[in-house]
Amino acid sequence: MTMAGTFAAAGEEVGGLDGESLGVRLAAIAGASPPPVPAPAAVAVFAGDHGVLAEGVTLWPQDVTAQMVQNFLAGGAAINVLARQTGARVVVVDVGVATELDAAPGLVRRKVRAGTGNLAREPAMTVEEAQHALDVGAAVAARLVADGAACLVTGDMGIGNTTPSAALVAAFTGRAAGEVTGRGTGIDDATLARKIAAVEAGLDRTPRDDPLAVLASLGGLEIAALAGFVVGGAAARVPVVVDGVIAGAALLTAAQLVPRAVHFCFAGHRSTEPAAAVVLATLGLEPILDLDLRLGEGSGACLALPVLEAAARILGEMATFDAAGVTAKPD
Amino acid sequence: MTMAGTFAAAGEEVGGLDGESLGVRLAAIAGASPPPVPAPAAVAVFAGDHGVLAEGVTLWPQDVTAQMVQNFLAGGAAINVLARQTGARVVVVDVGVATELDAAPGLVRRKVRAGTGNLAREPAMTVEEAQHALDVGAAVAARLVADGAACLVTGDMGIGNTTPSAALVAAFTGRAAGEVTGRGTGIDDATLARKIAAVEAGLDRTPRDDPLAVLASLGGLEIAALAGFVVGGAAARVPVVVDGVIAGAALLTAAQLVPRAVHFCFAGHRSTEPAAAVVLATLGLEPILDLDLRLGEGSGACLALPVLEAAARILGEMATFDAAGVTAKPD
Repeated sequence: MTMAGTFAAAGEEVGGLDGESLGVRLAAIAGASPPPVPAPAAVAVFAGDHGVLAEGVTLWPQDVTAQMVQNFLAGGAAINVLARQTGARVVVVDVGVATELDAAPGLVRRKVRAGTGNLAREPAMTVEEAQHALDVGAAVAARLVADGAACLVTGDMGIGNTTPSAALVAAFTGRAAGEVTGRGTGIDDATLARKIAAVEAGLDRTPRDDPLAVLASLGGLEIAALAGFVVGGAAARVPVVVDGVIAGAALLTAAQLVPRAVHFCFAGHRSTEPAAAVVLATLGLEPILDLDLRLGEGSGACLALPVLEAAARILGEMATFDAAGVTAKPD
Repeated sequence: MTMAGTFAAAGEEVGGLDGESLGVRLAAIAGASPPPVPAPAAVAVFAGDHGVLAEGVTLWPQDVTAQMVQNFLAGGAAINVLARQTGARVVVVDVGVATELDAAPGLVRRKVRAGTGNLAREPAMTVEEAQHALDVGAAVAARLVADGAACLVTGDMGIGNTTPSAALVAAFTGRAAGEVTGRGTGIDDATLARKIAAVEAGLDRTPRDDPLAVLASLGGLEIAALAGFVVGGAAARVPVVVDGVIAGAALLTAAQLVPRAVHFCFAGHRSTEPAAAVVLATLGLEPILDLDLRLGEGSGACLALPVLEAAARILGEMATFDAAGVTAKPD
């Protein structure tokens, strides 16, 4: 037997455990083995607008944020479809939409301010506003768990929000703007150049010593709330499934503020945005799914819920070979 | 704008459609758009034994096949757990288990013969037996669809069945035995060497001109039945989700006999067995999931069912931007 053969065999054994480790992580989170099935889940879609749109970083008009909020509330968006399938509820949290939104079933109105400042030229928000948004997110998480959610899923809506996400990821990882800034909903080269310039300008005027100050400087409101949501879920000891570059930036922010919160998080789906990959690599998370989707809104995380549920059920319901009367393999 | 930039942008656009193409494929299969939701599913676990165990290709005793059949019937195996979660029924089809199995709910008794011949030294079965097993599989598929299944899932149980799978994949692709023979349930180097030698011996005495003769020569009975099952599902115009190296070998066999059947198939999960990757590459299939699981039994395909279901629901239930009143992006 060669060393290479032994090593290859050992490598295969390590790989063979990866699938089951979802279940082991769920057990660690719940402090129980087998872990409880992480269902039903609740999806919170945090919505906010972004002053950085003035820099021409996207082709979509700002109004689309509020229009998509109405679409979520009407149940017509991708996240609604996928949440229905998995039996998850969806709440939409207005933490920073530019326009006033009327009260509606499923809408949680917690506006901290009506859109952020333009991060390329001024702080996206004050430190107090950032703290407020973090509190909103943490409170939403606590409320959803109190109402029966056994798993939380991050969702987001905010035209332009891949720009502050890229800025936060650059600030917290030391990467250059060009490395973490992607094409979002499919922008052209000229728009991408403006987006990178906006991120660079924001980074230039942002000191890096205090994570909360970085968050306030680069925004956005829904990202801050999502960071709070992650920490709130971790505090309630439920798994939090994050998806996409916006939630990734929020998770990275949460990791600066409360590092242990990351242990409660699962990456639902591999995003094609470069900043998302940087976040996962930085935090050592492997996404559950890699479907080459670009639906956004937390949809990839919703698709991962059945897999997470299955991991818990396998540990809880599958017979051991002993119990099933299966002859053991000789060692 | 550089060509590289244009090309990169074009590449991203292509990638962005991949997730939705599951739904498009479902629509093509059903001949309806949006496609019907492919639920409920039915899992058929085809079970058979293998004369090639005499060559020492695995550390598991043959009795485990029948014991695991009992475990499936009792609902304690991974595939049962995952099928319950997705609302799929499970039937076990004895097409070639070496021992007699008593009648039991969920057991379909269609034994063609009590285990195959040793493929290293003799034909695994006669051409008539191979045809019989194909018929069993096709009939099971037709029956499950008639009973209400809108999607079929392949399952398999047969101690030693990665050996005939590797042999069939080698025969149909021209690969060398060493390229397609893997460690299965985790065999050591000496066992792997015996397994490769058995595959080589089987290939040496098998002419390649007639796919049915190849199938008969290299077996196994459950693989032949699975090939029939795939074709039966395609004939009934339902999606067939295949998983793992045994179903992969069956799908490749089906593709020799009825090439169009492949269009009805989805690869549920990326197997770590080398022959499985060869099958997917040969047929141009991309697995829905890549979870580094090694539970077998069709479990990866079951885990992919919610994703397939979601793809249909997205097409059927998601509002268009127009319907949702979302402002269009300028071109």
